[in-house]
Amino acid sequence: MTDRRKKNIVELTRTTVEEYARAPKLPLVLLLDNVRSMQNVGSLLRTCDAFAVEEVVMAGITGVPPHPEISKSALGAEESVKWRHVEDAAAEVRAQIAQGVCVCVLEQTRGSVPLQDFVPERGRRYMLVVGNEVDGVSQEIVDDSDVCLEIPQCGVKHSLNVAVSGAIALWHFFSAQK
Amino acid sequence: MTDRRKKNIVELTRTTVEEYARAPKLPLVLLLDNVRSMQNVGSLLRTCDAFAVEEVVMAGITGVPPHPEISKSALGAEESVKWRHVEDAAAEVRAQIAQGVCVCVLEQTRGSVPLQDFVPERGRRYMLVVGNEVDGVSQEIVDDSDVCLEIPQCGVKHSLNVAVSGAIALWHFFSAQK
Repeated sequence: MTDRRKKNIVELTRTTVEEYARAPKLPLVLLLDNVRSMQNVGSLLRTCDAFAVEEVVMAGITGVPPHPEISKSALGAEESVKWRHVEDAAAEVRAQIAQGVCVCVLEQTRGSVPLQDFVPERGRRYMLVVGNEVDGVSQEIVDDSDVCLEIPQCGVKHSLNVAVSGAIALWHFFSAQK
Repeated sequence: MTDRRKKNIVELTRTTVEEYARAPKLPLVLLLDNVRSMQNVGSLLRTCDAFAVEEVVMAGITGVPPHPEISKSALGAEESVKWRHVEDAAAEVRAQIAQGVCVCVLEQTRGSVPLQDFVPERGRRYMLVVGNEVDGVSQEIVDDSDVCLEIPQCGVKHSLNVAVSGAIALWHFFSAQK
């Protein structure tokens, strides 16, 4: 019979915050455009830690560490993941585009590309923008972006939780590099 | 300029619970093996609604609707997604295997298959098993399963939140059918 023992804590090779800072990163910056819930911010930080996302930019009303509600879902990822806050999400997007970064918005728009059909280019730098729990990503940023990615959905609800949809999109970029 | 207006509520074609019940489903059952947090149960129900998962089986201590903490994150998906509770998760797995269902466990084990390398077969029926927030899926179920799927991770934390990792795995099955 195949050995299928669950990996123990040593086999899971947890790295230290210092080792993590030096490790290679996914060439992707995650922009949170006015994300209201601290728990969603913390959850996205935890996912960004797992997928070695280069940086998280919290924009506008998006909460920042240190905050007990963020720590509760980030579980320490707020210490490992590089982050900064900006007031103006749209200005940040324009600055990234000016630097040649490909800005991808996760949003349900006309003419959007289904996530599974989008093939990230190796060596290209990306920004992924996720938005507010109610209003999504601002129309201004949608208009300025290079591409709108949409996760096809067929339920009675018309949207996934932002920490879930963001994680699925981050996995898409991360797994494409594997 | 391309029309990129965000889809409005009509364009998002929200279906009713009755229409949803009649719509085609992903041939996949999600088994929750002793998931402790009601919020994770609710979040997974919301994701299962979006990806038209056939059924959710809550096993052991996993909480079931109606419950205010589940509703808070399920946001109505507890009404659309078919679900049932069983006491014994391992017995449920054995019953599914006996019916020819391919049982996939989401767990970090020796000999696991990286999620991105797993290609679901069209027409085959699947069960996806996710586990407890601390202990994961029981070793008994891991041993009985057909395949262990692992989401590669490289952060200081050694695991994703179960509502996030479950959603990523469900997306993998759902998007493979697109």
